[in-house]
Order: sequence, then structure tokens, then C-alpha cells
Amino acid sequence: MKTGQWLMAGAIATILLAPGCKPKGAQSALSGDAASKVYVAPGQYDEFYNIVSGGFNGQISVVGLPSGRVLKIVPVFSVHPENGWGFSEESKPMLNTSHGFIPWDDLHHIAISTTNAEHDGRWAFANANNTPRIAKIDLTTFKTTEIIEIPNSGGNHSSPFITENTEYIVAGTRFSLPTGDNVDVPIATYKENFKGTISFISVDQEHGNMDIAFQLDAPPFNFDLARAGKKKSHGWFFFSTYNTEMAHTLLEVNASQKDKDFIMAVNWKKAEEYIKAGKGKKIKSPYVHNVWDEDTHTAISTVREDILSLDPRELKDIVYFIPCPKSPHGTDTDPTGEYIIGSGKLAAIIPVFSFTKMLKAIEDKNFEGNIDGMPVLNYEAVLHGEVLKPGLGPLHTEFDGKGNAYTSMFVSSEIVKWNIETLEVLDRVPTFYSVGHLMIPGGPTGKPHGKYMVAYNKITKDRYLPTGPELAHSAQLFDISGDKMQLLLDFPTIGEPHYAEAFPAALIKDKQVKFYKMEKNNHPRALKGINDARVERDGNKVHVYMTSIRSNFRPDNIEGVRVGDEVYFHVTNLEQDWDVPHGFAIKGANTAELLIMPGETATLKWVPDRVGIFPFYCTDFCSALHQEMQGYLRVSPKGSNNPITFSTGVAE
Amino acid sequence: MKTGQWLMAGAIATILLAPGCKPKGAQSALSGDAASKVYVAPGQYDEFYNIVSGGFNGQISVVGLPSGRVLKIVPVFSVHPENGWGFSEESKPMLNTSHGFIPWDDLHHIAISTTNAEHDGRWAFANANNTPRIAKIDLTTFKTTEIIEIPNSGGNHSSPFITENTEYIVAGTRFSLPTGDNVDVPIATYKENFKGTISFISVDQEHGNMDIAFQLDAPPFNFDLARAGKKKSHGWFFFSTYNTEMAHTLLEVNASQKDKDFIMAVNWKKAEEYIKAGKGKKIKSPYVHNVWDEDTHTAISTVREDILSLDPRELKDIVYFIPCPKSPHGTDTDPTGEYIIGSGKLAAIIPVFSFTKMLKAIEDKNFEGNIDGMPVLNYEAVLHGEVLKPGLGPLHTEFDGKGNAYTSMFVSSEIVKWNIETLEVLDRVPTFYSVGHLMIPGGPTGKPHGKYMVAYNKITKDRYLPTGPELAHSAQLFDISGDKMQLLLDFPTIGEPHYAEAFPAALIKDKQVKFYKMEKNNHPRALKGINDARVERDGNKVHVYMTSIRSNFRPDNIEGVRVGDEVYFHVTNLEQDWDVPHGFAIKGANTAELLIMPGETATLKWVPDRVGIFPFYCTDFCSALHQEMQGYLRVSPKGSNNPITFSTGVAE
Repeated sequence: MKTGQWLMAGAIATILLAPGCKPKGAQSALSGDAASKVYVAPGQYDEFYNIVSGGFNGQISVVGLPSGRVLKIVPVFSVHPENGWGFSEESKPMLNTSHGFIPWDDLHHIAISTTNAEHDGRWAFANANNTPRIAKIDLTTFKTTEIIEIPNSGGNHSSPFITENTEYIVAGTRFSLPTGDNVDVPIATYKENFKGTISFISVDQEHGNMDIAFQLDAPPFNFDLARAGKKKSHGWFFFSTYNTEMAHTLLEVNASQKDKDFIMAVNWKKAEEYIKAGKGKKIKSPYVHNVWDEDTHTAISTVREDILSLDPRELKDIVYFIPCPKSPHGTDTDPTGEYIIGSGKLAAIIPVFSFTKMLKAIEDKNFEGNIDGMPVLNYEAVLHGEVLKPGLGPLHTEFDGKGNAYTSMFVSSEIVKWNIETLEVLDRVPTFYSVGHLMIPGGPTGKPHGKYMVAYNKITKDRYLPTGPELAHSAQLFDISGDKMQLLLDFPTIGEPHYAEAFPAALIKDKQVKFYKMEKNNHPRALKGINDARVERDGNKVHVYMTSIRSNFRPDNIEGVRVGDEVYFHVTNLEQDWDVPHGFAIKGANTAELLIMPGETATLKWVPDRVGIFPFYCTDFCSALHQEMQGYLRVSPKGSNNPITFSTGVAE
Repeated sequence: MKTGQWLMAGAIATILLAPGCKPKGAQSALSGDAASKVYVAPGQYDEFYNIVSGGFNGQISVVGLPSGRVLKIVPVFSVHPENGWGFSEESKPMLNTSHGFIPWDDLHHIAISTTNAEHDGRWAFANANNTPRIAKIDLTTFKTTEIIEIPNSGGNHSSPFITENTEYIVAGTRFSLPTGDNVDVPIATYKENFKGTISFISVDQEHGNMDIAFQLDAPPFNFDLARAGKKKSHGWFFFSTYNTEMAHTLLEVNASQKDKDFIMAVNWKKAEEYIKAGKGKKIKSPYVHNVWDEDTHTAISTVREDILSLDPRELKDIVYFIPCPKSPHGTDTDPTGEYIIGSGKLAAIIPVFSFTKMLKAIEDKNFEGNIDGMPVLNYEAVLHGEVLKPGLGPLHTEFDGKGNAYTSMFVSSEIVKWNIETLEVLDRVPTFYSVGHLMIPGGPTGKPHGKYMVAYNKITKDRYLPTGPELAHSAQLFDISGDKMQLLLDFPTIGEPHYAEAFPAALIKDKQVKFYKMEKNNHPRALKGINDARVERDGNKVHVYMTSIRSNFRPDNIEGVRVGDEVYFHVTNLEQDWDVPHGFAIKGANTAELLIMPGETATLKWVPDRVGIFPFYCTDFCSALHQEMQGYLRVSPKGSNNPITFSTGVAE
């Protein structure tokens, strides 16, 4: 098969600056038909959970499909005043890093845990792009229960990617950095002093606990999206790379020079063997690991000191490079594990590589060069074939499980459907506008559910009623059950959606935790009943042990607190039913509220800075007498001798 | 007309604790019909903007109706990592209060500006419940442009309410407080030492700037929802009150003792006359006023020292009390201004008062008592009539402009439609579950658009796919164009919706600002073009004057910064097109990103605490070469002599 044109820089130069241009041939939805396909009647459930990254909001959102309704925003890397995430004493440590407490990050990609390359509905993993971290979200509580920092990394964009049995979560560096003892170096010494890394994070199969198993050294390329091999290619990983020019300034020009960059193929089973054989080198690299303790409902933050590093320049059978046109943004592996699709964002063809051919090329040493001694495989020898004229700017590919691939085309704003074997283009639909990722439920796994496809678009402009200069980002839902894709619905998204995954609701809907059992509440300040409510002074610390249950706080009048005291409100929600949270807030405090789930204890710290009476109240409407769920705290001067007193109203 | 039973405490005691009970007789939607009524085809616009309070998230959300899609979350009182609200140097002062910077509040109610008692689409106002404040949101940019603190207030729940030409925004106290010099008092001296206030905040008609015109002293009742009179009753205000028992502990019992509380009627035109006549008393009451300067796109925070106070115990023709069963939660005035509806959350009837009769009762001195010398009007003399057997727990009433009222019933979880003149109940529909507020577009104005009605519910439970213990709150859309209400759609909401308003899209959709003009950018650190990009040291401050335009930052490599320097990144987005924001973030910074709209300049401050190379990048996908929009900052040791240098890549 003939190699197509790689370079389209001239052709697309003008369009690059106008990503919102309206594609021609817009296919309109058949309105009535589409309406009934996306309508989920009151009281009915959506068919799929769609876990969507929030991009620059740092959170994930849970969307129902086909309705497009936002069922929940789960705070991950950013503080979330709404439920006190990053403000309560219990949750603050989750946002600790080696740089201290960080209130924000940029969350780009989702990986749902898999077993035998199929979604198993246990956990969702997500990346922090800016200050490199990986988070784990428990899919029975939709709560972030672990965040691990990744040392020796800048711009953790190339993550998280998952092996077929969730053995590892894998993360590559977008921005290379100088590491080790010599980090104060001129940026112009990039090629000599900067390096990339690929981190393999092991996942404990019982609790999901993460640990950095090892890091691979890598050239100072920018790593982009990646996929694990699966089934026949299980044991391998495939990373797209760009800026193989190794430019460090004006990358828009300097990193777009070469016609080919690479897909980096990693034999991680081999790397694992080297680690077991003691070939890993211990490198001092402090990083922080935060775990939500299920027993006390409190985050525990620990500092780790070292990682184990492998150098594939020395251990030569770990890493191979496959040439790939041009500035690859995504690499995807098909449901069989045989095909590896490269998507060069400046390319005008889509190369499809064969895993079988790759193994043969390695065996035959069919190399066309090397990078620091690591082999570059012969392009033609590894190629299954090229999808010709697919459109402009291919980014990502998902699969329907029926032999078809769907590729998002950023520059030409469309989705293209093609046959994986024959490489024939079967259908194309415009997107409004500038599609980034696309998603088919189960699409990256060995078992896609090829009913719907969602395009997550980068430009919104006129798609909804305008809301000033700042607009919601947008998604579009398509029916892909027939031969032709049918646009069903436009829906706005929360934050900036990048990657998303979806799975059938049946996988987890009956496994949801509805409330926490009081008998399992081992928070050290938890109260077991309303009669334990009390206030205790300990030096300049005042501990308010408070209960909340419809419709009162106990205690509800507190006196004897002084200016400058550290006041800790430890509030236990004694309810034992679904959907009865209580909130707690106090006037003038420089923090957020607490939103306390039934059976949970949460703590708000406040240092009053003035004399006065400060009302507090329940912030989450809980009953007809919610409005009466209030109390007062009296703060006296610093030198006051007022003793601690409190009342519950009961005896009065 | 006979006075109905006021007390239903016994009957409802058990239901109060089970607000999520499924109402019987659930009316199912006619699926196909409903689907087509709520479906907004891709590329089409919603019919109404729905401005919805976010409750304990502190923000508002903009929802399209009938689709129920969330078009935007507008940050108001809470930090919003997504777009740097409360993190950028420009926006931080917006969250200043007399208690310092506060990162969260609880936003309950919306008031859209009106002219001649009709929505005029200029501004939305919203309240901070916890630390009393009122915010103004500009409806051409959907940006919060002003926040004013309310002194002498606790629990600013009873706000914002608006007079018919937006002359005033009015706010009552939920929690009374001791004020003045003697604030360190026992809580048990509540009746003697605590007081309520009603604040009248004037609105400048050209720019919308707010100012506290005057405060009325009030008894230490808890004030709840209120409405201005309109048309014939223009010049008056009607506040619901509860806890007229003046209890300060265990209110769920102690504030539910009396069968009647009151609607407090305020003749604000008369109060205005007294202020003009110099009867206002200057009271020292520091409060903070924050204004978003449109010229520099920077918030300016100022401290005010005094307010003017009026005492209606002395100025006796300002305030009158109308008895109202039981623990009123809402008061509403119908589109004609003649009828005043009281909704007692523990009542089993709905009293409808007549403005004409009220004036006559005042004229006739038909009083049944007084409160501190302020007259209590005779209930029967003011009563138009009672809606009998409307359901349990009436909360709020809206109007369709066709002579009908719709009241939300919290305890019996339903909406009841009744005729304002005849008081006959015409229809009822169940809500799922426990409806709080309800909303009809234009419903509180003199010109309702009686096509849709939305119920904002407090309990969600099984309405959507479950998402662990914490669930989204929920809304339900009804078609009210016919005689019977028809349930069309359930949709989840952002935060906890309390009150909301809606208006036809045509009112503002063509007035939206799409981007800010560079020639009007008067930010003192703004750059007019890429050639102005530079870095300057000023002592230990380093100012990075940076441009962002597809697809690069200038400068993109910066050296000479030292540990402990205060680094200010002043980033100007030079784009001049709609929907091309750029983002800016740097690894390890203890802040959020900047999200910079076209034509805007925003500043991120960071004090690096370690030596190293710190990558930065654009966080908002802006073009095919967005991924290349990056740079590096080198931080050298504190004692280093490295001079400031920077590059843009252009000359290299």
C-alpha cells in the first residue's frame, strides 16, 4: 500500500486560525425521531453513565446518556466550595503536593478500571495536568479516594492510561524537565539537560491503592495520548510523541518541523521483569501520596522519598519507536489488540500499524535508525495501511466493536467512520465545532457498546443562547447503531471536556452506597448520639462536638469562645437514610461550608478575629423545619474569663 | 369567608421527617408529546433564559428552557477555580468583606431587574446568606460586577427583593444580632439585646451601582421571603416573618409555638420621605463594597463606615403587621398588585390579603394589637379570603398572568393551581420530591409568561441514575399552557436551587458582549501587541508582561527569577473574536489558572519556593497547535545573580 502525503502544513495554515469555521454539508437531525431517542421520561433512568473530564475545572462530571443531563460534579483536583472539598479539615490533605496545598488543577483524561480488557466499574482514574498527579474515584460512592503525585514530570497530559487488568496506570511527560541535583540550568540546554519519563503506577487489586512501581527514562520529546495493548498485544504500551525536534521555544513553529514523529512502543512486561530482577535504580524524588481513609473519612497525606528508575538506553529491549506522521496527538488500539492507530494532528492520512508486523520487525531487526540506541522500526514494515483522505487533523479514534473505527478530525471539524481492516472511509459527519476527543461507551476496551458516540467540541460560539464572552463547552450525541451516524443532541458540558468514558448503567447502579453506617463511623471526633454533644476547651483550642439531625444542631448556643481561639466544629450527621445531608456554615468564617453525608463526621476550623455573636445554620434544605436549624456562637474578648457553656434548648 | 384551620402541627408531625415520601397519584408524562415539547434540536435555541440560584455552591447557573440544559455557571460568592474567580489578582477583591477574604457563601435568591414591574434584562441580583451581601450580575456579560456587604445583619436569607423600577434591592435579617457597641452579650438576652434590620439598597439607574440607602430597625423576628408591591401597591413591601416567639434555641420546637406570625408591611415611600427629611440616624457600621471596574477589568474594594437608620417605633406610619398562619416562609404579590399571598409552611390554608382592604384597615385604625407600638392589623379586615385545603406546607406562589396562582406545597410534595379571585383550587400535580421554590417566567412581575412552570425540589433520591450518597438536586418542568399542568421533564441542577427567575431569550440574546475590545483595555499592565512583551524586575517583584494569541505566549522562556521573588504574570489575550479564551497555569503554583477572555488582561501571582524549571501552558484548547502553546520559567537560588532574560523564540 502506498504511503500517503504526510505534510499538509500549507493546506491547513489558514484554517488553523479559524477552528470555528462552519463545516459545509451540515447534516440536520431528524427532529422528532431524535427527540424520542434522547428523551428520558421523568422517573426513568439513563442507559449509560458517562464519566467526563472537566479540563480546566479540575473535576469530573457524571453525565447520563442519552439525555446529556449532568448527574453530578465530583471534585477531584480543585477545591469545591459547594461541598467543602479542600476546606474541611478531613479533605484538605487530599490536595497536598510536594509543592504544598494546591487548590486547582487541569483534569484531562479518564480511565475506567478494566478486567480482561472490559470495564469492570470499580474505579475511575484521572490526571492532573499542571502539577502531575493521578486520582482515583470510587465508583460506589463517586468520591475521590486517592491522589498520588508523579515526580520527575512536567505537564502530566499523557495520562492516565490503563492496562487490561488495571495492573498499571501509566503516565508520560508532556513537558520534560531537568531532574536530580542539577535543576538550575539554562533553558537553552534543553537537549542536554532535560528528560522525559514514563511512570508505571501499580494498582492494588483489592483496594485500588496506587504506588509508583517504576519510571522509564525517555528522551525529551513531548508525550501525548497513549493506549495499552490488549488481548494479543497485552504487555505493550503505545505512546504518541511530538516535538521530537526537542524545541524549547515557539513550539508552534519549532516543534512542527519534522514530517514524522513517533509512536513509542513499550514492552512493559519486559520492564516488569527487569524490576523484579533488581535492575531498577533508586532515585531520590520526593512526592506526596494522599489516601482517603474509609474508616475515619479523613485524608491521610504521606511523603515518599524515592522511585525506581529504568533506563531503556541500557535495557535495550524495552522501547521501540514507530515513525508516525505528523505531530501525533493520539494513539489507539482496536478491540482485538492487533491494530495501533496513529493520529497526527498535522497529518492528512491515518496510519494503521499491525502489532503482528511490529513483533516481526523487531524479530527481524528491521530498523531504520535509532534514538540514543533505542531502535526506530521501519515504517513500511510495521504498517497495516493508511486511511487515505480521512479529513484534516486526526486526533483520536474509538471503536464500535463491529469492525469500525471513528476518528475525530479537529481541523476539518468532523468525525470519520472507517473500516479497520479495509481502511475504507464509510461515513463522515460534521461537528460544531472543532472536535477534540470522541467517545463510544466501552470504546477503548475490548468490548465496545456501539450504540452512541459523543463528540466533545472545543468551540461553541452560536450553538446555545449566548452568555457573554465566556461560553460553556459543548458535546454532541450521535446514534451510531446504523450504517450512517445520526446527530441526536447538542448539550453543554461542565468545564472543558477532554476525554470521557461511558459504560452501561447496569454495571454499577445497584452497587451504590446510599449512606454511611453510623456503626462504622470511626472518625476520632464522631458522636454516637445527640446526648454526646458537648464543647471542650483545650488551651486555645475549642472543640465543638456537634450532632445534626432533622431539624436541629446540638449544641445550638455556645459561649465562652475568645478571639484568637482555634475553634473546631466536628459535626456528625446522625441521619441513616439516603439523600439527607446536612450542611454547616458560620457567619464571617474564612472558609467554605461543610456538607456532611449521613453517617459522616466533618470538621470546620475557624479562628474568630472579633467579638460578637455569630449565627450558624444548616445549609442544605433538610425538612419543613430546616429554616429553624440554626444556632449562635458568642465570641468574647481575648482576655475574657467566660467559661465554655453550651445549650441544646431541650431543658429550657 | 370563614377563617380556616391554621394549625396542622399534629397532622404533619410524622411527615415532616419524611419529606421524600412518594406522593400518590403520580401523573405520568405523555412521553412522545413531552419529548417533542422539551427537545431543542442541535443548532436551535432555547426559548427562555432561566437564572437559577446555586444555593450552597454560592453561584448562579444559567439554564435554557425548555431543554433544561446548563448554559453557564456564573461565579458569584464562591471561588471558582475553573476561571480563576477569587484567584486572579483582579478578581480577589470581589470576595473581600469586613471579615476579610471569604471563599464561599450560600446564594438563595435571584431578582432580575424590572422597569414598570416588567423584566428589563439589565441585571440579576443575588444574595449571600451566610455573610450578608448582595451581588449584581451584568446580563450582557454574565459576570458578577458588584458585591455590597450588609452590616447589622445575620443570615441574609430574606433578600434580594426588588421594587418595580429597580429603585431598591431590599434585604431582611434571618438571624437577629446584637449591634452597636455592646455585642458581647449572653445569647439568653436575645429579646433585649438582639434586633433585626431591613436594608434598602439603592440602584443607580445608569450603571446599576448599589448603595445602602437606609436601614429600618425591626424586632428580633426571623424575616423570610418578601415581595415589593407593584402597580397599585407600588411603594409598599411585604415581608413574611417567623420565630415571632423570639426563641434563640431549639427553634424547631420553640419557634413553632404560635398559630400566627406576621406579614410585615412596609411603606417604603414614606421611609424615603423621612430619609429626605433628615430623620435618618447615622450609625457606625463598617461594610465593604466591591465593584468590578469595566475600564481596567479589576475589582476595586472600598470600606464604608456608616449607614442611615430609621426606627419605625418612632416613625409610626412606616410599618404594619398583618397576622398570618403559621411560620410564613413566603409572601407574594399578584401581577395586579392587589393581592398579597401568605404561605405559612406549617399552615393548612393559604390566606390571600387585599391591598385595598389593608389601606382601609390602616385608615380605619382597624388594629388588633401592636408590636413595640407598631400596629397589628385586624386579620379579617385585611383578608380577601383563604384558599381552603390547598395541601400541606405552602411555601411560595407564582402567577401565570391569566388570573391563576401556583403554590408549592413542601410537605405534601405538590404544586397547586388556584384562581386568585375565587380562591378555587383548579388543579394539582405531585412533585418528586419536596418542592421548595417554583418559577414561572416573569412570574413575580406584572407580566408573567404563563407557558412553563418549574418546580425546584429538595429531595432527589431515585430520580436519576444513583451517584453514591451525594446526589444532584432536581427540577421538574411543567407545561402550564392548558387548563391542567403537564409534567414534561426532570432535570438535575447545579448546587442547590432555591429561587430562580426566567425571561424570554429575545430580551437579551442580541445584547451579549462577545469579546472585549483591545482599544478599551485600560488595565495598567495590558499590552497592546506582541512586541511589548517583556519581563521587568522591581526589587523582589518580577512583572511578566505576557501576550497570548494563537498559538504562543510571549515571552515563552524566562530566566533570572529567584526563590522568594513575587512573580506577577500579567497576561493579555490579544484575540479579537468570540469564544477564543486563553488559559494560563504554571506547575506547582498554589493558586488556580487564569482564564482570559479576548481583549482582557489578568494577573496570576506566585512566589516560587524552590529552584527549578517550571513549565507553563495554555489551559484552554485554542487551535490545532494549542498543545504547543507552552513555555518555561527558570527559578534560581535566592542569592543568585542571574539577570532577568526572556525569549519569544522568534529570533532563534
